[in-house]
Amino acid sequence: MFRIAPRLRLVKPRQVCSSWRNLNTQGTGLGLPETLRRVLDNGISGQTVRVTGWIRSVRVQKRIAFAEVADGSTLKGIQIIMDDPQMANELTTGCSVEIDGVLADSPGREQSKEIQVTAVNVLGRSDPESYPLQKKRHTLEFLREIGYLRPRSQTIAAVTRLRDHAEAGLHRFFHDNEFVRIHTPALTSNDCEGGGETFTATTSGSDHPETDFFGKKVNLTVSGQLHLEVFAGAFKRVYNFNQAFRAEPSQTGRHLSEFWMVEAECAFVNDLSTLINVEEEMVRSTTQYLVDKAGADLGFFTQKNEPLTRLVQKLTDRHQQFARISYTEAIDILQKAEEKAKFVYKPQWGNDLQSEHERYLATTHFAGPVFVTDYPAAIKSFYMMPNPDSRTVACTDLLVPGPCELAGGSLREYDYNRLAKKVDELGFEQGSLDWYLDLRKFGSTPHGGFGMGFERYIQMVTGLESVRDIIPFPRHAGRCQY
Amino acid sequence: MFRIAPRLRLVKPRQVCSSWRNLNTQGTGLGLPETLRRVLDNGISGQTVRVTGWIRSVRVQKRIAFAEVADGSTLKGIQIIMDDPQMANELTTGCSVEIDGVLADSPGREQSKEIQVTAVNVLGRSDPESYPLQKKRHTLEFLREIGYLRPRSQTIAAVTRLRDHAEAGLHRFFHDNEFVRIHTPALTSNDCEGGGETFTATTSGSDHPETDFFGKKVNLTVSGQLHLEVFAGAFKRVYNFNQAFRAEPSQTGRHLSEFWMVEAECAFVNDLSTLINVEEEMVRSTTQYLVDKAGADLGFFTQKNEPLTRLVQKLTDRHQQFARISYTEAIDILQKAEEKAKFVYKPQWGNDLQSEHERYLATTHFAGPVFVTDYPAAIKSFYMMPNPDSRTVACTDLLVPGPCELAGGSLREYDYNRLAKKVDELGFEQGSLDWYLDLRKFGSTPHGGFGMGFERYIQMVTGLESVRDIIPFPRHAGRCQY
Repeated sequence: MFRIAPRLRLVKPRQVCSSWRNLNTQGTGLGLPETLRRVLDNGISGQTVRVTGWIRSVRVQKRIAFAEVADGSTLKGIQIIMDDPQMANELTTGCSVEIDGVLADSPGREQSKEIQVTAVNVLGRSDPESYPLQKKRHTLEFLREIGYLRPRSQTIAAVTRLRDHAEAGLHRFFHDNEFVRIHTPALTSNDCEGGGETFTATTSGSDHPETDFFGKKVNLTVSGQLHLEVFAGAFKRVYNFNQAFRAEPSQTGRHLSEFWMVEAECAFVNDLSTLINVEEEMVRSTTQYLVDKAGADLGFFTQKNEPLTRLVQKLTDRHQQFARISYTEAIDILQKAEEKAKFVYKPQWGNDLQSEHERYLATTHFAGPVFVTDYPAAIKSFYMMPNPDSRTVACTDLLVPGPCELAGGSLREYDYNRLAKKVDELGFEQGSLDWYLDLRKFGSTPHGGFGMGFERYIQMVTGLESVRDIIPFPRHAGRCQY
Repeated sequence: MFRIAPRLRLVKPRQVCSSWRNLNTQGTGLGLPETLRRVLDNGISGQTVRVTGWIRSVRVQKRIAFAEVADGSTLKGIQIIMDDPQMANELTTGCSVEIDGVLADSPGREQSKEIQVTAVNVLGRSDPESYPLQKKRHTLEFLREIGYLRPRSQTIAAVTRLRDHAEAGLHRFFHDNEFVRIHTPALTSNDCEGGGETFTATTSGSDHPETDFFGKKVNLTVSGQLHLEVFAGAFKRVYNFNQAFRAEPSQTGRHLSEFWMVEAECAFVNDLSTLINVEEEMVRSTTQYLVDKAGADLGFFTQKNEPLTRLVQKLTDRHQQFARISYTEAIDILQKAEEKAKFVYKPQWGNDLQSEHERYLATTHFAGPVFVTDYPAAIKSFYMMPNPDSRTVACTDLLVPGPCELAGGSLREYDYNRLAKKVDELGFEQGSLDWYLDLRKFGSTPHGGFGMGFERYIQMVTGLESVRDIIPFPRHAGRCQY
């Protein structure tokens, strides 16, 4: 049924299935070849197995040959042992294989099982001269240059599995707490955050939005907050998990032009501490989920990294709240530390916290997560709820070691007249926020919400420096590969 | 701590909490006000309760008043009963309330519990004259005009909860089967599907992509397939759940410019039937998940709709495979039905199936889901695996009553030389697909995948005609509200 390239034999799924009858406990009968994870978890010594994957390394000795096969389902692959070194003749790093053999307990400490090979079948070859991913350690910068192959590297593979589990942990947290997921849009006609660092979506490329596809200027979203507020006005507790877009020209490893965010919005909440409770528990339970479900991948990053190990402990500790201080207290701490810390920017009440300030608070002073609350109104968004002092607003930033600013949230102004006055003062385009205002007309409720950068979260738990190594296909100024 | 608007009292979360000590079994202690679902599920008759939500309807009689309170957590709200009709004086449709009362068994058949009210507190008023959502039945078209309020309507609320559960069901299916979720990008420099119906993302709006943000033309993705293939080359089983974008000018209710898709890719698969097994089981288990977890919302659509009820039964029946026919057989069926069915387009081998043909197959002939396989190579994409007859390719479309084409998939050409020849013949921009070709250079494997339109899936199980009622914020030609 298939054109077969010379020297390429093909897997026969039905055979794979039948040789797996003992292991296949899923019962879906889908006929997919097994993953190595299930071989290692469920296989029994002495059992005949067929596995598929890619060769990570080969070691040929006089009377025996070893190779490591990986398939992305585990941090380490599985060791295969060939009693006849000639069996390894065609094995090169990167080639895809189908291996028949017998499962055996491994004498090594590194893994529990290995395979005594009876037949080797190379499915797709990999020229050892030109294959870019050799066994030697590559830098993350180099791996970025071969973005289409880097998922096979141990670091990127571990990050990918952690992303998968972290997302699952987030969904579990929100569903356990009865939040409804809302699919907020990427294309939007509002630009509430302002700032102008937005992408326009266009079909004509012209400067005349009125003749473009939507008949007006349409941007890629910078945040789903306003859209979530619409649904919080009917569902009480809502969240999203979406891409957001910022045309941030900076060329540091801290910013991506396309990144993932989780945002939540809760109606009938008039207390910032309640919002902080939700935010804190989201981070704690998601991290606990990683510890429980992806311990090996997490361990790959935390082992030999004392501060990261302690951070994960702090994040998952049920008996210890995250630190909570006001912006005013933060400024006080920073001013006292000024001499020792040698800040470039002077900490001063009224100015926004600089990265160096945030880093000092999270990494040096608290050495762990800290919620900073009640920032000056003048440096925060128009929709935030003013505090009774009328100088500050009921908002919070969550600072952590690593990415510094992990999340931000606030109570929202829910009174129509007060919000309308603000919108007016700020000179938004006439009518552009009418629908947002109208939400305050019909059954408005005290409410609030927050957003957390997903890549920043992964950056925090892996300790990786650049967010470019955390997203499958990084996009930033001057770079959009594939 | 908060500026209180005249006549607006505020919820005090701590009080809400303490009055809920008996019901709060979640143990998270987040301090969020309870949802009506938990009141109805876990509440005990005679218990003192405080609930929050929005008034859906009010009925005042001489000596008693009734109202329905909803908060999006249930299809129906909860009935509250006021022994003093004056308590209902300020209640209007749409206003937000906090209600204190005592839970009682309901004498009505429609719901199990109701609340005998002791105190009513209107939090946010809703002017009955101008509130657009009155108790009377509104058309879906009208609801689209008030997009910021329509989540409060029963239909849109039920769709929203079904979306949430359907997504959760998909994640469960893929994780149970050890697929890894990959966050494929929205911004992409490739346009593999061609066709030209793509949006460009730009910061300058100019016609000179080389001076734009990324230094080249960047589109909004139409499919994550190629990016998934990258990760399938390291992870064996991968999937995504993302937005896709098409600048489709059509003004029917069948197309959105921004929609959600789930796509999957499996390495080491060389058999179309294995791929079809995965696709079928994904649809079956997700639908079963809806039946199990969102029965009331699903029932809202299936009740009084015999064909839809039967369809859901067929989709969840573990003992009956979905129908599977070849394109050639489909043409045969269509040609035999030609006279009776009065097609506008003549069914003819070599031409693509028209909507009317697909509809006939799924709705009339099979009255259920049908996989059509092995279409002519000439009308399908360049990356699909040719069959030995060399006229057809190893692909499949899943047709269903309602949206017709629900999903599409294929085995992919995995041989470098054969694919390079194809890319050459089709005249793709020089070098633009090098990375995609290179995937076939280093450990290529037989593989395949498929994609399913998420809105189409929801359309199928709800029977709704227009996809514009299925996504929270519909975008289509000339329309991008909010």
